[in-house]
Amino acid sequence: MRIKCKKRDLSEGINIVSKAVSNKTTMPILQCILVEAAGGRIKLIANDLELGIETFIEGTVLEEGKIALEAKFFSDIVRKLPESEINIETNSDYKTTVYCEKTKAIVPCRSGEDFSYLPVIEKEKSITLSQMTLRDIIRQTIFSISDNENTRLMTGEFFDIKNNKLSVVSLDGHRISIRNVELKGENPDVSVIVPGKTLQEISKILSGGIDDEVSIFFSDNNILFEFDETRIVSRLIEGEYFKISQMLSIDHNIVVKTDRKDLMSIIDRAMIFIQETDKKPIVVSVKNDNNMYIRVDTNLGSLNEELEVEKTGDEIIIGFNPKFIMDALRVIDDDSVNIYMYDSKSPCFIKNAEETYIYIILPININTSIY
Amino acid sequence: MRIKCKKRDLSEGINIVSKAVSNKTTMPILQCILVEAAGGRIKLIANDLELGIETFIEGTVLEEGKIALEAKFFSDIVRKLPESEINIETNSDYKTTVYCEKTKAIVPCRSGEDFSYLPVIEKEKSITLSQMTLRDIIRQTIFSISDNENTRLMTGEFFDIKNNKLSVVSLDGHRISIRNVELKGENPDVSVIVPGKTLQEISKILSGGIDDEVSIFFSDNNILFEFDETRIVSRLIEGEYFKISQMLSIDHNIVVKTDRKDLMSIIDRAMIFIQETDKKPIVVSVKNDNNMYIRVDTNLGSLNEELEVEKTGDEIIIGFNPKFIMDALRVIDDDSVNIYMYDSKSPCFIKNAEETYIYIILPININTSIY
Repeated sequence: MRIKCKKRDLSEGINIVSKAVSNKTTMPILQCILVEAAGGRIKLIANDLELGIETFIEGTVLEEGKIALEAKFFSDIVRKLPESEINIETNSDYKTTVYCEKTKAIVPCRSGEDFSYLPVIEKEKSITLSQMTLRDIIRQTIFSISDNENTRLMTGEFFDIKNNKLSVVSLDGHRISIRNVELKGENPDVSVIVPGKTLQEISKILSGGIDDEVSIFFSDNNILFEFDETRIVSRLIEGEYFKISQMLSIDHNIVVKTDRKDLMSIIDRAMIFIQETDKKPIVVSVKNDNNMYIRVDTNLGSLNEELEVEKTGDEIIIGFNPKFIMDALRVIDDDSVNIYMYDSKSPCFIKNAEETYIYIILPININTSIY
Repeated sequence: MRIKCKKRDLSEGINIVSKAVSNKTTMPILQCILVEAAGGRIKLIANDLELGIETFIEGTVLEEGKIALEAKFFSDIVRKLPESEINIETNSDYKTTVYCEKTKAIVPCRSGEDFSYLPVIEKEKSITLSQMTLRDIIRQTIFSISDNENTRLMTGEFFDIKNNKLSVVSLDGHRISIRNVELKGENPDVSVIVPGKTLQEISKILSGGIDDEVSIFFSDNNILFEFDETRIVSRLIEGEYFKISQMLSIDHNIVVKTDRKDLMSIIDRAMIFIQETDKKPIVVSVKNDNNMYIRVDTNLGSLNEELEVEKTGDEIIIGFNPKFIMDALRVIDDDSVNIYMYDSKSPCFIKNAEETYIYIILPININTSIY
């Protein structure tokens, strides 16, 4: 194989596919990036067998061929080369040399023959979104997946398409995050569970804006994301996702509207008083004087805060894990938020009127009589 | 105690003294910051018994007194308060409350009675430098101290004042870094060994420029740095420092001048090929064609590089630990550097003509016949 390309293009391509390089593996080939020069085009591929990414880069094929380069090393050396033209040559013994200006580097590699290509996905069922929308959806839901492999379904996000509406759901047993998006055109009804890791890596790669599209294709066991010069294939999580419709129909008669950043500052301070190990709640009480009083009492000390709100409905005292409230507030883009509650034992909803986002958070039981 | 001050001033003060708060200690009082309101001024103090820092902050004393506040907690809560006025009140039970706008926080604290004040330093022997110069001196020498407590002398830097010249030296057995500075006015002859940790913390606090001064006072066991509203006292390391004059008189007949950044890029790449465990050298050969050839050969691969130089003297082949060369090049501010060598077994010098900086690096033995 002999190729030449710009350092910048190669470096960008490596950055994209590196997200699918396995860190922990006993199979050295999974720690490699395959460089394939064929049909006049240069393709980079990485595949850890759960997630596979391939991308084409600009450049010239001088001699067709392929080689598997040790990803970490290859990425390091390319990043540190000057912004100039790079030539890569592989001889018949798989010895690979990288040339750039006056630099000549022989880099660790393996035969490309053992490399696993991405599975072929039939392109029957698909939807199209803007890259920015997909990135936002992931950012606004990914924090409430579970990282516990014993509850495998919870480590993924539920992508549910019905009546040309995409609903993305994540939950960890204490809270549920939902993003609803209207889709353009005619779309298939389909439901899959996408691994959280896949979504995290994709959101790092998606660099496009509102006008750049990403197509998503669904097969029985895999999902394919296609955008720009890049294709990402991930296995799906098998099983039936949790039914959340009952949660969504919960009543609420108390609505509190307040400034998002002011509430975040208060919770940020409250969290200093709460150590990981003691699961102390913050106690929120909304009074008829249109103030929300927030209080923490731990063995470290205590905090009393007060925040102006617009309230409809009764007074309420309710306890929360401050992290759950914080995680939701942090990803909402609106200046003010609406919080919907029923009583101190029922889940609280943070959502907008259009319900493009809904965060459902279970309260922590507190003895309301002492507050 | 009752004081009021601006959040910004308190936060800056905490940042400064926090550098002397002990992280690893069984004595809880060493993890505290003492807030002392006396004589109409507010002083913050931290002291881990090796290093002590005190600083005055702007503010109003409403009632004199003192209290030791748990440093990490106090720092966290103050940082997260709004940019506004802060009131701190301590009652007779040492319960301390921080007020800021609508926030009321009771914070962990202890009686200030057990707190160790900074030792008193007689101000007989002193020198004065610009804050910027001291910061530069530390940055340009600190990397070659040893972190091995078994060679305690090497964990500090030698401050040697003679004939109104300050010479600062650090060494770790493989290399020596020297910074020479002309002092203004009449100065005492004095030599001390200052702990590296002290210097690292001071360089983080020194924020002033070329016109802001720092005074340094020397006593038998301590050193005192005084600048702005801050005093820093550190114990000195006892013992007699290494004689380095013999090293400085070493001959050299080969001088190579080259671009600093270009050489850094090459060494940066070379370091990718060298793992921590295998102590492979980079092999540098300077030829009569006015090129420096740099080569690495390891079990990962090999690298060949070539760099234009201006050379006087013979050809040479010499091996180096690339990290030692890199550390020196990184802190030099000049665009080009001069490298002085004698043969493949003698130390190499990187220094400027005025010898305001001198970096001496021992070579690694290589079999020069194979190159």
